[in-house]
Amino acid sequence: MNPASVIEPIRHGGILELRLARPPVNALDPLLVRSLREAIEAAPAHGAQALLLSGRQGMFSAGLDVPALIALDRDAMSEFWGGFFDLCAAIARAPIPVAAAVTGHAPAGGAVLAMLCDYRVMARGAYRIGLNEVQVGLTVPECLQAALRRLVGTYRAERLLVSGTMLEPDAALAVGLVDELAEPDAVVSAALAWLDGLLALPHGAMQSTRALARADLAAIFADPASLPIADFLDGWFCAETQATLHALVARLKGRDRA
Amino acid sequence: MNPASVIEPIRHGGILELRLARPPVNALDPLLVRSLREAIEAAPAHGAQALLLSGRQGMFSAGLDVPALIALDRDAMSEFWGGFFDLCAAIARAPIPVAAAVTGHAPAGGAVLAMLCDYRVMARGAYRIGLNEVQVGLTVPECLQAALRRLVGTYRAERLLVSGTMLEPDAALAVGLVDELAEPDAVVSAALAWLDGLLALPHGAMQSTRALARADLAAIFADPASLPIADFLDGWFCAETQATLHALVARLKGRDRA
Amino acid sequence: MNPASVIEPIRHGGILELRLARPPVNALDPLLVRSLREAIEAAPAHGAQALLLSGRQGMFSAGLDVPALIALDRDAMSEFWGGFFDLCAAIARAPIPVAAAVTGHAPAGGAVLAMLCDYRVMARGAYRIGLNEVQVGLTVPECLQAALRRLVGTYRAERLLVSGTMLEPDAALAVGLVDELAEPDAVVSAALAWLDGLLALPHGAMQSTRALARADLAAIFADPASLPIADFLDGWFCAETQATLHALVARLKGRDRA
Repeated sequence: MNPASVIEPIRHGGILELRLARPPVNALDPLLVRSLREAIEAAPAHGAQALLLSGRQGMFSAGLDVPALIALDRDAMSEFWGGFFDLCAAIARAPIPVAAAVTGHAPAGGAVLAMLCDYRVMARGAYRIGLNEVQVGLTVPECLQAALRRLVGTYRAERLLVSGTMLEPDAALAVGLVDELAEPDAVVSAALAWLDGLLALPHGAMQSTRALARADLAAIFADPASLPIADFLDGWFCAETQATLHALVARLKGRDRA
Repeated sequence: MNPASVIEPIRHGGILELRLARPPVNALDPLLVRSLREAIEAAPAHGAQALLLSGRQGMFSAGLDVPALIALDRDAMSEFWGGFFDLCAAIARAPIPVAAAVTGHAPAGGAVLAMLCDYRVMARGAYRIGLNEVQVGLTVPECLQAALRRLVGTYRAERLLVSGTMLEPDAALAVGLVDELAEPDAVVSAALAWLDGLLALPHGAMQSTRALARADLAAIFADPASLPIADFLDGWFCAETQATLHALVARLKGRDRA
Repeated sequence: MNPASVIEPIRHGGILELRLARPPVNALDPLLVRSLREAIEAAPAHGAQALLLSGRQGMFSAGLDVPALIALDRDAMSEFWGGFFDLCAAIARAPIPVAAAVTGHAPAGGAVLAMLCDYRVMARGAYRIGLNEVQVGLTVPECLQAALRRLVGTYRAERLLVSGTMLEPDAALAVGLVDELAEPDAVVSAALAWLDGLLALPHGAMQSTRALARADLAAIFADPASLPIADFLDGWFCAETQATLHALVARLKGRDRA
């Protein structure tokens, strides 16, 4: 399968939009994770001055593709999770600004991708965003907790993470999980406008001030090999989590049949 | 005196409520401090999955029992203050979630107990909460300042602490010193409902995510023996503080006679 | 020139007001920077229990005196910038409380002076405050970014700094960049009232609690010699920044002629 087929690149002047395009819900499987990371890493060399991550209207990304991943053995899951951390590192450490057009739902891994960007515009409507890992039996690793803390504060992050809270757009804005709301058909243009504003600034001063301002986030992901892959795998393959994930897959299949 | 007599344990399924019951104002003396710490530490082994600290309606805890403590010499006061830090550590490092039902006033030490819990529900009404130590001549030690910072942010903590500000329920909610308000007779049930929500989550994922989210707080109290007891004693026995505390005791006695 | 001539000292009981008095806009040149630092450092020995920094009505300080500084060579600019960091250190590490009466505009260096104080009262009206360094081609160094983070949070600081955002009084209050608003002719009296409140507290407890609460800020400026002067100079003398600064100076001269 052609990697490009799950990422639709759209050029807007100096800004490269990377639209997640893996039907039906932009679930994160090994191919999408690798393709997105490669597209982000390649962008500056191809002349992009800024990046925009977007999804389809109504669904930014449903997070991990649990039905696909649950079939993987420990080695394959280890490779996937290492690749997911590599993708997180690529966003968190991007040398150019990255905005997220949260075009719809963004649970778990979808929220993670958005949270690591410089800025988030979310669609108004019956959509939700949040790190609901605990709800499906997964532990949120420290590196992702730290990334959320810098957005919303230490205690607010604790509350959101421990309960696996999903927030509607107004609540996400109030708590600082997103930065701006827009009508669903205006999310991409609002995020582009924000990036245009950054690119109109004196370039060197903006870039060096940005590098200092995000140095704490970059440091979290400085050494992807040191990130807690084994802990995640222990959690993924423990009985409680497997039971919760299998029940989730059964619900998803039931919904597909309905 | 039977330790149990100043702590009233009430079982609600998997949740153990520990109601402070030392008339008239749940002031923290050596017995109450030790009894509460022992009850918290013993709870998991007795099957409690979560804890709820509560007081009487109108008064959560008035903080340190200054009239009783002012009679202690340096050795006795050192033992008390070490015991108070041990109690702080027991809450901050509790292996199970702890909520506070702030059933009324919670100045100084009362606010400290609440602040170290996972979650705080406060009674609506003419009650106040805050770390007003400076108002009575006491320095707030770094470990408690750090615990407040993670709730309300570094600068907000500075302002509240330096002025010894007491807040009414709406203001405490706005600043993040408490998480939820309820009518006085519904504070306990609201806190129980919040704990029930946590206990309904996949257990292992909730517990391990919680442990990571609170690791910074746990670290502050990891070694109670290293906490600044001597600094506190120097402050307690200095002339300015003794004068302020004796004036406070004289006011309290005047109020009792009136 | 007499240093005292650019700083007008006004005594209010135990509070010493230092009013910036360098027409027309209190721009920070070597003399004003040195005079303000010397006045701050000398105040405690002259009996001041608290300090108040103020400007003229409508203009707190326009920040760096770019038209004057752009004529300096690298050595002279290095001396100026080292002196500016010394001034920052004097405010951040002041042994007595310092309030800012932000009597009007406070861009860039003006905002920096205010931000390092204990408390900020800003004039209501068409005035703006913010660290807009990026807008004029300058990088905000890490020590100043860290000082802003402790006021408004890590992510909010990132957004304000990278865009060089200027805020009107209501927005500055909402985000925590200032603490209180007052009518232009009441800004000084409101800041004095706030300082009076601190001075009415038990002195030792207030001072020691304040020292702990501001220890993180003091640590940032503990060794001014270690602050990034060379980085600033590299930025100042690079082509992009020089072009932006010369364009700024041309605009200022055009405005003077108009």
